Amino acid sequence: MRKASPAAKPKVTIRTVAEDAGVSVAAVSKVLRNAYGVSDSLRNKVTVSIEKLGYRPSTAARGMRGRTYTVGVLLVELRNPFLAEVIDGIKPTLSDANRQVLIGVSDAQASLEVSLIQSMMDMRVDGLILIAPRMNGEVLAKYAREIPIVAIGHHEPTADTFDTVNSDDRQGARLAVRALKDKGCHNIHMVNIPPKPDAPFVVSTQRQIGFLEGMGLSGHEAGQRVHFLPERINAEDVKLREFFSLDPLPDGVFCWSDIHGVQLLNEAERFGVSVPARMKFVGYDNSPTASLPLVGLSSIDQDPQRIGSKAAELLLSRIDGRSVPEHLLIEPTYVDRRSSQ
Amino acid sequence: MRKASPAAKPKVTIRTVAEDAGVSVAAVSKVLRNAYGVSDSLRNKVTVSIEKLGYRPSTAARGMRGRTYTVGVLLVELRNPFLAEVIDGIKPTLSDANRQVLIGVSDAQASLEVSLIQSMMDMRVDGLILIAPRMNGEVLAKYAREIPIVAIGHHEPTADTFDTVNSDDRQGARLAVRALKDKGCHNIHMVNIPPKPDAPFVVSTQRQIGFLEGMGLSGHEAGQRVHFLPERINAEDVKLREFFSLDPLPDGVFCWSDIHGVQLLNEAERFGVSVPARMKFVGYDNSPTASLPLVGLSSIDQDPQRIGSKAAELLLSRIDGRSVPEHLLIEPTYVDRRSSQ
Repeated sequence: MRKASPAAKPKVTIRTVAEDAGVSVAAVSKVLRNAYGVSDSLRNKVTVSIEKLGYRPSTAARGMRGRTYTVGVLLVELRNPFLAEVIDGIKPTLSDANRQVLIGVSDAQASLEVSLIQSMMDMRVDGLILIAPRMNGEVLAKYAREIPIVAIGHHEPTADTFDTVNSDDRQGARLAVRALKDKGCHNIHMVNIPPKPDAPFVVSTQRQIGFLEGMGLSGHEAGQRVHFLPERINAEDVKLREFFSLDPLPDGVFCWSDIHGVQLLNEAERFGVSVPARMKFVGYDNSPTASLPLVGLSSIDQDPQRIGSKAAELLLSRIDGRSVPEHLLIEPTYVDRRSSQ
Repeated sequence: MRKASPAAKPKVTIRTVAEDAGVSVAAVSKVLRNAYGVSDSLRNKVTVSIEKLGYRPSTAARGMRGRTYTVGVLLVELRNPFLAEVIDGIKPTLSDANRQVLIGVSDAQASLEVSLIQSMMDMRVDGLILIAPRMNGEVLAKYAREIPIVAIGHHEPTADTFDTVNSDDRQGARLAVRALKDKGCHNIHMVNIPPKPDAPFVVSTQRQIGFLEGMGLSGHEAGQRVHFLPERINAEDVKLREFFSLDPLPDGVFCWSDIHGVQLLNEAERFGVSVPARMKFVGYDNSPTASLPLVGLSSIDQDPQRIGSKAAELLLSRIDGRSVPEHLLIEPTYVDRRSSQ
């Protein structure tokens, strides 16, 4: 199928090495897998031939017996710049430990997530970092019995087979409410994505709980204060129109994510609601778009690089044998910009 | 190292299957690799045991003898939303062919690029799609002799061991110049990233050639009209100040990418240059940020999903044995927004 060009050298295989060393293929294999009972003289002969021929045992072959020095990272999507920053935190830590990162994108579909994890396990990655996994905690726990796993953006502090690293999402939401109150807002609302199954695990739920805590409201009172919009807002969405027609109009809005925040800033202009004079906004994630002067969205910073590097450290110690679970919360901070001034 | 919890089932291996079927491990292996001379009765026995036990041969093991049904995609970075859209085009086409995508991110470092490609080849991916690879054409050609490769954002129409799919970048730049001329601009400049080694292959060079063609200028005349800024512009960069102090000030600016375009729109405001009255902008990529009403950057659309799906189709046909190279150019279009009105 694949044509070797005339210039390509013949492939060096375990057989070539065996012939060159004058030993059996099984003997080379023993040396490669560092098997018990290999004599120094055999090891020497084989090592010399391996170096002379430039033989590189394939990772798939090495994978049959041990580590591949790759780590799988699972993302829900590629468009959220927050995830790129988490990866920026993951990579240097793993790179220092001589490990490469392979990324799978699940498009937020639990079925694709599961098949990507299975492929990665089949390819013998050394461990997995799952960012905001959609699968439920039981499935996650099942895989965590087969391979070291650290989950980011999944709040399950009682999980005992895997680790978690999260922004303290409740605290972040309380910071946003406090900032809006400090700016003089009296009628603060939240815009969130619709609740998901496995609700307590997901960050949007945690931020909603933090919002209610900050507002001093009970869960029953959430109905009037929390509005649900899809992640990618349709400009014709009747709920969008309803939100900007609320009477009295909210004077402060906490958005569960900058993805909503940036869209709503743009929509506010379209609905003739001036920001920040009539409505102030605080988002979540401190995304590059939020920080553009033309956008100027106040936001909660999760410190994604720190989240990523902590997750990588935990994964490495799990790969090295730790089995006691760790669950870390990273302190968020508030970043003040034009949208809430 | 990895502790099996008490609840975990013992792992089903090829040996378990052999014992259950009452045949040898070699016989199971023959059935698995669909070897010549396997009797129907043997195949039946083994298949029944495989299904009963839920045995799943690992991809690493399958990789030893054939396809892994995964494709590696190499990106230079995760922050450019254009790349996310290319992936959106790649995935459905590969998914229809029952293949999963694993992504590696090279951070635009040729050395990391090479080691990711080697890891992916070691893990026996079926083929590679490289987006804007940094390695030079020779290295690319070398790998293409070992594994099917399609390159995106790499202009090398004479390459004979791999395929390329590109936006017609020269045509895109000519469209941008024409749009600025149509809006009445008389003093049009281009902002580009600094030239790279392997220059003719890269899209920034192609766009610069197209700009000069559209302007009717020779390469020698580029010096006065093309300004180089790093991809992430530092607000204190002396070259940035020089650009906004040009006398006469350019009345039209073509940016090689929206990454520059969005940053320069913001900087123009800071330097007190009103857009579009005194300076009109056209970017390249038609990114989501460019399309935000608060940003409103005119841009050239590359049709990234089409680029991605075409690349995936080419890769599949290469995996299926095609060796005659294909080099596709996709027609770009101009998208008009506030920045050039």
